[in-house]
This record gives sequence, C-alpha cells and structure tokens, in this order.
Amino acid sequence: MRLSKRCEHFNALHAEIASQGINPYFRPTAKTWGSEVEVAGKRLVMIGSNDYLGLSHDPRVMDASAKAVYAWGTGPGGSRFLSGNMVLHQLLEERLAAFVGKKGAVVHVTGFSTNLGALGCLITPADTVLCDREGHASIFEGIKSTRARISTFAHNDVQNAAKKIAEAKRARPDGDVFLITEGVFSMSGDVAAFGELAALKDEFPDIIIYLDDAHGLGVLGPGGRGTALHFDAAARTDFIMGTFSKAMASIGGFIAADDEGVLRYLRYQSRTQIFSAALPAANTTAVLTCLDILEKEPERVTRLHQVTNRMREGYKAIGLRIGQSASPIIPIIIGSDEKAFQFSQALFENGVFALPAIYPAVPRGQALIRTAYMSTHEDRQMDFVLEVLDRLARQFRIRAQDVEEDEIRAAQPNMTPDATADGAGRAKLSYL
Amino acid sequence: MRLSKRCEHFNALHAEIASQGINPYFRPTAKTWGSEVEVAGKRLVMIGSNDYLGLSHDPRVMDASAKAVYAWGTGPGGSRFLSGNMVLHQLLEERLAAFVGKKGAVVHVTGFSTNLGALGCLITPADTVLCDREGHASIFEGIKSTRARISTFAHNDVQNAAKKIAEAKRARPDGDVFLITEGVFSMSGDVAAFGELAALKDEFPDIIIYLDDAHGLGVLGPGGRGTALHFDAAARTDFIMGTFSKAMASIGGFIAADDEGVLRYLRYQSRTQIFSAALPAANTTAVLTCLDILEKEPERVTRLHQVTNRMREGYKAIGLRIGQSASPIIPIIIGSDEKAFQFSQALFENGVFALPAIYPAVPRGQALIRTAYMSTHEDRQMDFVLEVLDRLARQFRIRAQDVEEDEIRAAQPNMTPDATADGAGRAKLSYL
Repeated sequence: MRLSKRCEHFNALHAEIASQGINPYFRPTAKTWGSEVEVAGKRLVMIGSNDYLGLSHDPRVMDASAKAVYAWGTGPGGSRFLSGNMVLHQLLEERLAAFVGKKGAVVHVTGFSTNLGALGCLITPADTVLCDREGHASIFEGIKSTRARISTFAHNDVQNAAKKIAEAKRARPDGDVFLITEGVFSMSGDVAAFGELAALKDEFPDIIIYLDDAHGLGVLGPGGRGTALHFDAAARTDFIMGTFSKAMASIGGFIAADDEGVLRYLRYQSRTQIFSAALPAANTTAVLTCLDILEKEPERVTRLHQVTNRMREGYKAIGLRIGQSASPIIPIIIGSDEKAFQFSQALFENGVFALPAIYPAVPRGQALIRTAYMSTHEDRQMDFVLEVLDRLARQFRIRAQDVEEDEIRAAQPNMTPDATADGAGRAKLSYL
Repeated sequence: MRLSKRCEHFNALHAEIASQGINPYFRPTAKTWGSEVEVAGKRLVMIGSNDYLGLSHDPRVMDASAKAVYAWGTGPGGSRFLSGNMVLHQLLEERLAAFVGKKGAVVHVTGFSTNLGALGCLITPADTVLCDREGHASIFEGIKSTRARISTFAHNDVQNAAKKIAEAKRARPDGDVFLITEGVFSMSGDVAAFGELAALKDEFPDIIIYLDDAHGLGVLGPGGRGTALHFDAAARTDFIMGTFSKAMASIGGFIAADDEGVLRYLRYQSRTQIFSAALPAANTTAVLTCLDILEKEPERVTRLHQVTNRMREGYKAIGLRIGQSASPIIPIIIGSDEKAFQFSQALFENGVFALPAIYPAVPRGQALIRTAYMSTHEDRQMDFVLEVLDRLARQFRIRAQDVEEDEIRAAQPNMTPDATADGAGRAKLSYL
C-alpha cells in the first residue's frame, strides 16, 4: 500500500520540526478561563483566541447553553431538512437577519459549511468569481466545487477589483460576476475597503457582492453589527455570511440576504445544509444569548477597541512591525518561518499563548505571530504581554530598527545574510 | 441581477408543493423528549431520528455536557490547529480508536467535514475511487474536490466492485484504488456486505478500504463498535470514518486508522480540520460520555435491535414493503413522490413523525418513508405506531397485496394506471 509513502514527505518535515522541539500547533489546552489558559502545566495569557468579546465564559451565555442541553438534549438527531430542525434555528435566523440589516438568514452547522454550501449552489459554471487574494480557504473550496471561473484581485485593491470586473463582463457577458471579500481578514487583521468595493455597484450594478464577515461580526459596525453596516453598505451587499465561532462564542454559520426566494433556494439546495446534522440546541442558544447581550451592552464592543488600541500603541512604541491592522487581530511580523516558530516558543515559555502563521498562509519571508484581543483582557494581562514582547523583541531582533540594522549589515560582503538563511529553510518547513 | 431568476425554477416547484400544504421538510420542533416531539402544538412519536441509542436525553450525557459548558466555555475560540485544541479532543481520539479497533483517530467538527477533508487530502489525481452507488453526499463532495477518477459500483454488489477494481488496476496501474462504502446505508437501512468487500483484499491486497460508518457506530458490532468489528474486518479496513450526530448524541466526526504517519498527515492536511473551528467542549464531552455508557451498558444495543425487530415484524405482518433492511433504519416503500408526501402528512396528522425520501435520494418511483428506531422507544409507542401504520397502509393502499391488486387492475384497458400518474408528477416534485 502506498498510503504511508504518499505521506512520507510531510512526515519528514514534521519530524524535522519536532526534533527542534518547536511545533506550536495542535497544542492541547488543559484548562481555560477565556483570556488565560493552561497548557502543559503552564498558565498563559491567551492572545490567540477569536472569542473577541469574551462571551464564551460569560455566565449568562454558559447558563443559557447548559439549560438548552437539558431542554433539548445534547444531539440534534438529524439534519434540519429532516428531523433536526428546531424553533431555535428559526428564531436565530430572524435575529441574525435583523442584526446585520438583512431580511432573512439561513443557519448552517459551521462557517466552513456555510461558504461551501452557499457558494456551491449559488454559482453556476457561466459565472466569474472574483475573490480577494487573502480570502478564507472555505470560500475557495466553495468556488472550486462549482465549475465557475475563479480569479483573485490584489488584496484590498478596489482598482484592481474594478479592472477584473470589467474584464470578466467583456469576456463572459452571459455569466454573473460574484465579488467576494472578507470584512476583517483573519491573518493580517486588515479591514476591507468595503465601502469602496460596495460602491463599485454604481459602475457595475449587476455584480453580486458576497461578504464573509466571520471576523467582523461582533467587532465592527454599530454595536458589532458587522462590516456592511460599519460602511453603511448593507443594502448593496447581496449576501452577508458570518460565523458563530468568533465573537458569537459558539460554532456555526449563517448567510443573510434580502430576497426570500433566494434564501429558500439556499435552504433547500445547499448540500452542507441538507446532508449535515443540525446545529445542536446548546450551540444555537449560545448565539441567541450573545445577540441579547450585544443588543443590551454595545459597550463591550467599545471596550474591545480600547484593548486593541492600547496593544497596538504599545507594540508601536516597542518598535514592532504590525502591518495595517485596524481590528482586534494584530499581526507581529517576524520574517522567516524558523524565527516565527522560535519566537512563538519563547512566548510560550514566557507565559503568552500566540501562534505563528507561515507560508502559504502568509507571503514567503513574512511569517508572523497572529495576535488577537478580547474585550475581557484586563490591564494587568496587557501590561504583562507588552513587557514580554518588549523583552523578546530585542532578543530576537524583530523590531523595525533591528531589522533595518541587520539588513545594512547583511548587505556588507562576507557576512551571512539572515534573509538567505531564511530562504533556504523556508520551503522545507511549510506545513500546509 | 439574475440571482432570483436562477432560483425561479426551484421556487415554482416549492410553491406548487406548498400550495398543497404537504411540505414535510424543515418542520420545526418546539419541544423534544427524544422518542417524542412537539411540532406545531402536536405531540408526536418520533420515528425519524438518528439518535439510535436515545443518549441525547440520557441524564448522564446531559449532565456531563452541561458541566463541560461551565468548565470550558461555550465556544472553542479557534481551530484545533491554532488555539481551539483541548485535551478533551485528544482523549476522545484515543477512546474512539480503541472502540473501533484502530490505533489512532482524528476528530473533526462534523461528519460531512470529516469525509470532505480526509478524502480531499488522501486521494491524488492518479487514483481511482470506487464508491457504492448509495454512498453519502459528503463522500462524493470529498472525491469531487480531488481530480481522481470517480466511479460507482452497484449498491452492495461485491462482484461488481471486484470487476471495477480489476478494470481500474488495468487502466491506471500507477494510481491507488480506493474502495468506499457505508456500513449501514442511511436511507435503505441496508447493511453493507462488508465482510466480502474487505475480503477483496485477498485478491487485491493493495486496495485502500474506506468505511463510512456513520449509521453503524453504536448500532452494529459487539457493544456497538461498528460495522468493521461486526464483520471481524477492522484490520483489513484502512480507514474507519464515523459521526457523532447519530448514536453518539452530539455532532462531529472522526477518522480512524492504524498508521501513525497517515494520521498525522490527515491531522495537518485536512482543510476542514485546519480551517474550521474546533468541536466545542460540550459536544466533545457528550461523545466521551456516550462511550462510557456504551462500554458499561452494551445491553442498550441489544434493546435497540429488539425494538427494531419488533417493528420490522409488525410491518411485515401489516404487509408493508420494507426492503432488505437489517438495521434500525426501516424504509416503508410508498411509490410516487406525491403519495409519499401525502402519506407523511397523514402520519403527522395521526401523531407520528417520519419523513419521505424522494428522487434523487432514492430511485424514481421508489419514494419511501424513512423510519428509524431508538433503544428508548417504549412498547406503548411501538403499539401506537403499528396501529397508525396498519390503518393508513390500508387507506393509502401501500401494502404489498394492495400494490399487486392495483397493478393487475392497471394492466386492464380503459383504466388510469397509478404508475403512469405517478410518473407524470414525479419529476416536477423533485426537491434536491
């Protein structure tokens, strides 16, 4: 059997990394308090969670979810299509639609399956799909399952998107053009230029705009109502997709739209909807309770941005390179994959949980530590993280000024430039 | 925008069915007690759930799941790859592997994503995939995401499978052949001829056997250990895939195998693993507790088969056509899609919850009511269901003897044969 042989290359890479004792992935949490976790007997400040509003540990959310277990049982018993549909799902769909400014919504069991199922049945082979280059894997999987033409536009580049729309309309006048972007990009923390993207409807009124707002929901917009309302562009957005595994303290996903017929079509034709078990009551109820809290306490979103701003300013003062992030996701750019692995390990040893993103998740040589903040982060935790980062940044020479000095030094002859050493090791260490 | 236009055909069909008041799908449950549910103010005996062992409402499973909510919070905060991995997941993987007779397992957030992610990364374009014709949609989605050659073999036909393996090995000697089947088929209730399929390894030692045991886990084999152990064929099965949304009273899925390197490869390369949020603690703990109970109380599985046998014998006595089912899924064959819709509606009005499967989920003209039984079904509920079925079967003329009489009558001239009337309406009413 050739099975183990086809995995050989990957396993050799894995062994190499493991031998250095620096594999940071799949690290199992033994306990969690939300903004702190215990891993391998060590208590760490968590700056790598997507639970942006800290609602996973809110007593009201936990109480409602536990009560739902007793009221409904632990499993759904079937797909929503057949025996697993609950009044809770319908209630959640109404609440979500109203929250993001759409007329209706369809809930799926995960965010991945929402993109896969929805794009899989909406897009026809005659269409062209233009997606931001940094779009999530589930978007590309969804498109791949159709036979439409897939193209990307340069990250957050509205001019490039406009050019590609015009080209697509000339080349395939009979198909539709889907324009897909995330609201907040999961690795870079960039906020989409969504106002301008939506304004492309002035020039191209029949494009179909699909917004994946996984990381924008609960984070951007009035009271956390998402990226479309943040830019006052909900009416121009044909589809707003969101997930519950980030600010909504659960798992699952939804897609919201205005056209009732389109929503019904999605409900009955999305294969991940029809052929997956329903979202259990405990997970569904958690989201409903998060919406209650968000509607009553929009100040949680304000606090999230205060925490984020404090960290961003702190990182700038340290001299870290943190990209263009305008969201609770702040990348710390390291450089080579090896260095990012080592830096993550040093963070761990110093009491901070944050993980590296390496090629191909980010461009080559731009490996970063993805950090993310929560409205429940306390001042003492932030002070602690900033102190650790200041110390390690000097040690690892990742501050802008260190990088500049090293580059000047590397340009001199007879010195081993960091960049080349990085380049050699990188390809070998790519995991994904 | 052509969006609503592309949904027009579907929405016209839907309106037609809705106008007859017989759309049985997405019926929202308002309350549930496991083997009974309340829908639209009506209390019904549930014979359409996949919660085969009734563990969703077991107080021990509910307690453990509710406690997990408080111990771990409601959401996972990230993918297992990054921040969402918990010691619970690792513990569950060890327990599952031991339970089904394999060395290791990888847990995913849903069953659909398990098949999609695992097949998506295991299969290469040079391979040939042979799947039972009645395999689940998620298997075909997983294969579709590769560029391998897809072929099906006749349902549960070992000779046909052997023939196709031989052909594939001749036509593409450099690729692998994957042989995929379900253990228990979700619509027909058929049990795979898995012993014979696995024995094909005598003739073709290097084929890769992948068993989707979604409906076999907790149902077949010693103490519910699944189809592979039922046929004493675990060692010959390269991959055993299972879900938690059936007998395991939760959601999620896993894939088990013996080769550590292959499992590691799956863990890091399955896109639905890397790019989906982790299974929350409440859902994970529910499965762990189900395994505890199954290991202590194998008699629950015995009781499930007693319930099923009683219903099967009862249906035979009534004269219903119930196919070859040897599992807790018993199809009641109706005929036309319309009649199946009407029959399901009559069941509902008479206090029984069970839904139709129509073309293309089943062959044309073979529309059926899918019924499924639970170890927690009580005698009074079974008596009630059998009484309703006996009455409605006569009324709808679906008993074998009625169908035979009608066929003889239809063969006579100047009479409208039922079969033709059915044929005309069917295509129009196909939902999926």
